[in-house]
Amino acid sequence: MKVILVGAGPGDEELITLKGIEAIKNADVIVYDDLIGEKLLKYSKKDAELIYVGKRKGKHSHKQEEINKILIDKAKENKLVVRLKGGDSFVFGRGGEEVLALKGEGIEYEMVPGITSSIAVPEIFGIPVTHRKVSTSFTVVTGHEAEDKSEGEMQVKLSELNADTIVILMGITTLEKHVSELLKNPKRTLDTPVAILMNGSRENQRIVRGTLSNIVDTSKLENVSPPGIIIIGDVVNIL
Amino acid sequence: MKVILVGAGPGDEELITLKGIEAIKNADVIVYDDLIGEKLLKYSKKDAELIYVGKRKGKHSHKQEEINKILIDKAKENKLVVRLKGGDSFVFGRGGEEVLALKGEGIEYEMVPGITSSIAVPEIFGIPVTHRKVSTSFTVVTGHEAEDKSEGEMQVKLSELNADTIVILMGITTLEKHVSELLKNPKRTLDTPVAILMNGSRENQRIVRGTLSNIVDTSKLENVSPPGIIIIGDVVNIL
Ligand SMILES: C[S@@+](CC[C@H](N)C(=O)[O-])C[C@H]1O[C@@H](n2cnc3c(N)ncnc32)[C@H](O)[C@@H]1O
Ligand SMILES: C[S@@+](CC[C@H](N)C(=O)[O-])C[C@H]1O[C@@H](n2cnc3c(N)ncnc32)[C@H](O)[C@@H]1O
Repeated sequence: MKVILVGAGPGDEELITLKGIEAIKNADVIVYDDLIGEKLLKYSKKDAELIYVGKRKGKHSHKQEEINKILIDKAKENKLVVRLKGGDSFVFGRGGEEVLALKGEGIEYEMVPGITSSIAVPEIFGIPVTHRKVSTSFTVVTGHEAEDKSEGEMQVKLSELNADTIVILMGITTLEKHVSELLKNPKRTLDTPVAILMNGSRENQRIVRGTLSNIVDTSKLENVSPPGIIIIGDVVNIL
Repeated sequence: MKVILVGAGPGDEELITLKGIEAIKNADVIVYDDLIGEKLLKYSKKDAELIYVGKRKGKHSHKQEEINKILIDKAKENKLVVRLKGGDSFVFGRGGEEVLALKGEGIEYEMVPGITSSIAVPEIFGIPVTHRKVSTSFTVVTGHEAEDKSEGEMQVKLSELNADTIVILMGITTLEKHVSELLKNPKRTLDTPVAILMNGSRENQRIVRGTLSNIVDTSKLENVSPPGIIIIGDVVNIL
């Protein structure tokens, strides 16, 4: 029938849209892959088929091709399929690949945008990605952690990114490399503020602040660990 | 009492979060400024005070300082105040300025993230801001249209932005200038795909596609007008 790709938001189950909830309520099949999705399953129909395709330990981890196949097969069974994804499906969420697979089979799809962690997590910690006279541009980029190769290599070097604010996803385990790359750009200095935001909007959310000169050491002292976002720029301390 | 800054999403009233609706339901005072906000007022308490601070023709248009004062005064009257904003409050929404004003008076505030037009509007038109091997970074930047000077001048030139995908807000009336600026960057060529997305998620939504070589002419032919987003990069035609 149709596949609806729904962004589930950064973790807090109340950060899904009305439209997202509506899609979950109507779904015959829900394909989900993380804890965020799980909390939202309570809205599903009693007889909805719930298919976990995430990376939970001990379970078989689905390759992207397998996920695509499930979406296609279920839609062809004339089911209303909801594909639930963390944050927004099009922000390092591989939504585009799933859409291409669906289009290849002539299957109808619809996008329901989600609250992306890249903007919302800083926001929850009181950090605005833009601010009058301080930041009139922000860039969201993958740090391509070894644990998540899903998006392929970074295409532009961090040193080449000139936006006022930089938000790095999937970059925590490779922080040191990113810091030295950032410092190659004259816009950044040792004093440039940095924050690391972990598990934003979840119960265990945590922030670690510093500057490009000390964030590597601080993050070791504070046992920084994924999932988290790195945000760089004067907005970090503006509010 | 407290001010909650709620992002209302890009226009479709179903693109607000559960948390946003909850805040509207509980609010004693709702300060809103556009059509997006208006549609959501039906969720408010019967006796909630609704204060319009937008730019509707014929009405007095509130300066930012006046809006700040309303938020402060109402909170000091021990009211639960909701400040409803289009998209997300921290994406060219002047949310940071309102938070600074509140903090200056020692007033508690809370952020409820919203679906930003910068990512969601392309998404609704089937354009992903990131895509494996095509775009691993995207920049959101203001085009600073004359009609909306709210965010001040652009701080970084468009020619200096090297992310794979560029999303320009408030840039439609100054399109020509942006195109020539973009073309100064070797990453962009006359063939680089561009789309202009107007009134995304609303009934009158419209897309105009082209390349950096023809988008200025095409946009004239197609009577392109604000509000709209300009998106530049290979993702425009990827799906
Ligand atoms: C594969 S990406 C998916 C991003 C998602 N599509 C979005 O829009 O938020 C996963 C990365 O997002 C970031 N992330 C997602 N949720 C987060 C949260 N609640 N707190 C901090 N970072 C988060 C982390 O950088 C994590 O490694
Ligand atoms: C002052 S900015 C506020 C942006 C808002 N805070 C957000 O996150 O979407 C207003 C600009 O956002 C863009 N915009 C907002 N809603 C839009 C929509 N539904 N369709 C297209 N562009 C939109 C336009 O570029 C418009 O000039």
